[in-house]
Amino acid sequence: MTVDELVARAVDADRRAIARLVSMVEDASPLLREVMAALIPHAGSALVIGLTGAPGVGKSTSTSALVTAFRAQGLRVGVLAVDPTSPFTGGALLGDRVRMQDHATDDDVFIRSMATRGHLGGLAWATPQAVRILDAAGCDVVLVETVGVGQSEVDVAGLADTTVVLLAPGMGDGIQAAKAGILEVGDIFVVNKADRDGADAVVRDLRATVRMTERAPGDWRQPILTTVASRGEGIDELVAAIEAHRAWAVDSGTAQQRRVRRVRDEIQAIAIADLRRAIADLHGDERLDELARSVLAGEQDPYVAADTITAAMR
Amino acid sequence: MTVDELVARAVDADRRAIARLVSMVEDASPLLREVMAALIPHAGSALVIGLTGAPGVGKSTSTSALVTAFRAQGLRVGVLAVDPTSPFTGGALLGDRVRMQDHATDDDVFIRSMATRGHLGGLAWATPQAVRILDAAGCDVVLVETVGVGQSEVDVAGLADTTVVLLAPGMGDGIQAAKAGILEVGDIFVVNKADRDGADAVVRDLRATVRMTERAPGDWRQPILTTVASRGEGIDELVAAIEAHRAWAVDSGTAQQRRVRRVRDEIQAIAIADLRRAIADLHGDERLDELARSVLAGEQDPYVAADTITAAMR
Repeated sequence: MTVDELVARAVDADRRAIARLVSMVEDASPLLREVMAALIPHAGSALVIGLTGAPGVGKSTSTSALVTAFRAQGLRVGVLAVDPTSPFTGGALLGDRVRMQDHATDDDVFIRSMATRGHLGGLAWATPQAVRILDAAGCDVVLVETVGVGQSEVDVAGLADTTVVLLAPGMGDGIQAAKAGILEVGDIFVVNKADRDGADAVVRDLRATVRMTERAPGDWRQPILTTVASRGEGIDELVAAIEAHRAWAVDSGTAQQRRVRRVRDEIQAIAIADLRRAIADLHGDERLDELARSVLAGEQDPYVAADTITAAMR
Repeated sequence: MTVDELVARAVDADRRAIARLVSMVEDASPLLREVMAALIPHAGSALVIGLTGAPGVGKSTSTSALVTAFRAQGLRVGVLAVDPTSPFTGGALLGDRVRMQDHATDDDVFIRSMATRGHLGGLAWATPQAVRILDAAGCDVVLVETVGVGQSEVDVAGLADTTVVLLAPGMGDGIQAAKAGILEVGDIFVVNKADRDGADAVVRDLRATVRMTERAPGDWRQPILTTVASRGEGIDELVAAIEAHRAWAVDSGTAQQRRVRRVRDEIQAIAIADLRRAIADLHGDERLDELARSVLAGEQDPYVAADTITAAMR
């Protein structure tokens, strides 16, 4: 099958074609260039919602509940679970599948996990490309779920139109660690497992921190919601908050700014990946090891070694 | 003060000079090139130990217990807590400081947190450079602690001579999520908080997984230890395991291979950062936004846009 045929099928929402295209992204296929060229005219209309938070806060359960809510509105939904760490996608993803199985027989829900470990800086270009596939395949909403404490959750914020940050009571140090990174990226905060002890404290804590954030008139005021996603409680309010953020983002011009930034980051990531490949082609592992050994031997510093590489590129 | 003077003081273990040099790494100072050139002759002898694991497993407590153990051997110890997420280093680092305050008055312990969010791909070159500073300042052991689920914990493995992966019972989904990423990076596994319910199950689980890993004769057999770091239990055994791994790594040649790889990664990261800067200088935000907007409008695909960038570089 040619790339054009494959893309045509994906645009017709053929599940196998969509899956094959996402696999091509995962594998960093050399055909991606052709794939993206063919997809571009069909993409651009999906609302991209990022869900992030520390492990154990209930991301998959929340995602599943959101899928149910959007399906009730008759929307077609794509779910992309990005696992930036690992090629072995054992426990975590099995868990996802169990939670997602409510939607397994729904033709208007497309769920896909994607591992991007292996290509350096892969998350930066692979995630927007996978989103573009689901978008072009007619998904009205694409939910991007990232296992995230660290770089990855910040990245998903750049990617999404609206970023939902999940927290939960009883996460110990995790919450503290997470809070530092998430405050700047969340458009909406959700304290999930709100029926558990300690939920009030998390809400109070968040509220105090959000209140301290400087905000100009007309800026988005991040709401703090509570949910029990496993029972669907609070999900309608979450959907309403997502819609309110969307409306604000369109009115304020933020929506378009974010999309421009997103594509700009993707373009830069592709360019960097190309340059990285060019470095490897030009120098080879042997030559790079030789440079590294001379730095280890104290014969030159790493900046001088890096100059050798960049000079050869130009 | 000139760079040479500053480096000379750091090599003499002057705490303020060391702190200033680490800040220069954090700020991506243009003087780093000079700093690294001056440091190179003094560095290379420290044993670098990575500690990683999900939030809440007790990384800081374990680090602190290891500091005590190495100090008892008369070694000079550096601790680098790398927070890849965030410029606001609120809760997490305050916690660290509290746990670390046992060592606050010890002149032979140097503890430093480093935030690297802000420079793209910063962790890749900033962490080895901060390690080099502590190494050149006469630390016999440098403990690098990363808050990590995700890319960052894999990175620290590339950086360290020996990587210790911490787990703890009662972390829910976190453990599962973590396990996937950590099995390939850990040289030593530690189940901390071993006095809590569920510790046995975590050990059993890990043991079963480690047993399934393919291993050639002569390969390192990852030990699984238990600790209660808050009471110092199991720390002597952990130190012994670190020493055993070190001996194996030197004998097998792995130690040298890892160091070569580490410097190679650093050189590449510097080269990539230089190229990234060159892209920004050549094109400017306005031009990059323009390219992004034309992709959004469906006029070109991101690969063609990236070609424009890389072509201009050469």
